[in-house]
Amino acid sequence: MTGRLIGIGLGPGDPELLTLKAVRLMRAAPVIAYPLAEGGESLARAIAAPHLPGGQDEIAIPLCMSADRAPGQGAYDRAAPRIAAALEAGRDVAVLCEGDPLFYGSFLQLLARLGPRHPVEIVPGVSSVMAAAARARHPLSARADRFAVLPATLPDGALRAAIEAAESVAILKLGRHFARVKALIEDMGLTGRATYAERVGQPGERVLPLGETGGAAPYFALILIYRGAEPAILASLAAGDAR
Amino acid sequence: MTGRLIGIGLGPGDPELLTLKAVRLMRAAPVIAYPLAEGGESLARAIAAPHLPGGQDEIAIPLCMSADRAPGQGAYDRAAPRIAAALEAGRDVAVLCEGDPLFYGSFLQLLARLGPRHPVEIVPGVSSVMAAAARARHPLSARADRFAVLPATLPDGALRAAIEAAESVAILKLGRHFARVKALIEDMGLTGRATYAERVGQPGERVLPLGETGGAAPYFALILIYRGAEPAILASLAAGDAR
Repeated sequence: MTGRLIGIGLGPGDPELLTLKAVRLMRAAPVIAYPLAEGGESLARAIAAPHLPGGQDEIAIPLCMSADRAPGQGAYDRAAPRIAAALEAGRDVAVLCEGDPLFYGSFLQLLARLGPRHPVEIVPGVSSVMAAAARARHPLSARADRFAVLPATLPDGALRAAIEAAESVAILKLGRHFARVKALIEDMGLTGRATYAERVGQPGERVLPLGETGGAAPYFALILIYRGAEPAILASLAAGDAR
Repeated sequence: MTGRLIGIGLGPGDPELLTLKAVRLMRAAPVIAYPLAEGGESLARAIAAPHLPGGQDEIAIPLCMSADRAPGQGAYDRAAPRIAAALEAGRDVAVLCEGDPLFYGSFLQLLARLGPRHPVEIVPGVSSVMAAAARARHPLSARADRFAVLPATLPDGALRAAIEAAESVAILKLGRHFARVKALIEDMGLTGRATYAERVGQPGERVLPLGETGGAAPYFALILIYRGAEPAILASLAAGDAR
């Protein structure tokens, strides 16, 4: 009997934004696995920590972003056999995933390597996009709106076209692209409809109108833009009361 | 002292996919409010029911889709004063929202009407998009993918352009548009990369490859298409093992 590979969506950072199912399956698993940043910290484990029962075996997956040509690929090539060994011993492995496991998450790396040979269960999680919108009271979408999630790595032309083709946009992975993206949004006349968010639900959270931000942003920061056509919502937002 | 308007994201249908925060705030509120479909059923209340403590006042919001020119607007015009009365009496009102409150949710209608004059708290929830992907092991996005959420109400030309402009797509609100959208996806050669889902996490859940579906779908059904460039993931999916 092989164990199950369980992808646990932990939500954006607040340990209270785990689902009941995530808490239950995570606590019941004899083994947990999680990515470890270069400095030795694991945000995923920190989010999960208040709920861990103690006594679980732990598989840390050290990420070394610079050493691998495709970032993370090598780390998961090395981690997959360690997790497979636990699964083959009949032990469930709960993989701790920030946000949602399948939405820009590295769980895909493990799913591709281990999914074909082991039973899989995935617990969806609250995305940082939804959490940022909730904190800012920023509408994500209504009725027939198109909603686009875009990486800030896109060049200006592609980013502009994608923003113009949707009523609502989330731009992720800002980091060193922040000043360029901010200037593009300003050039498009959309700064007044844009919200900036970093570290939502974590210590150091910052959520504010894009126009009030400075010139730098971390990698895990995002911008939301809403220019949908819901009149009452826009009126409320324009009044500045709904933030 | 005015009460708080609290938008509670309940997730897609499984009562175990509520967050710990949603359960806590929903149980503590003296008043709950929720939409009531024309048949008198409330999916939101049904999702919440296992967690309700009993003894709360309840404000049902009867939706009458056909009577109002803008569906739901009239219903929320009528419901807002009833909720406002509770808030003005200093009582918190927890509004039960399927999925996430700000992602195609009617909570926006209440936020626009009541947000300017009352304190607001919003608890983000798991979206049916993430839940469908989790159930199907369908990747939503990786790395620099663009991810678009599109209403099936878009005409064929706009839908085709939007699908072509993203590596990953979710098409919502299928209902009477299902056969047309399915034919468009087939015409684009993407049926093999598409997953169909209805009633995720609810009784009667159906999640299967789009190519195996029939000709009809309810309004709350969705299609996911992934054609991103993550080679290992695509290989795993193509092998048919990861479903």
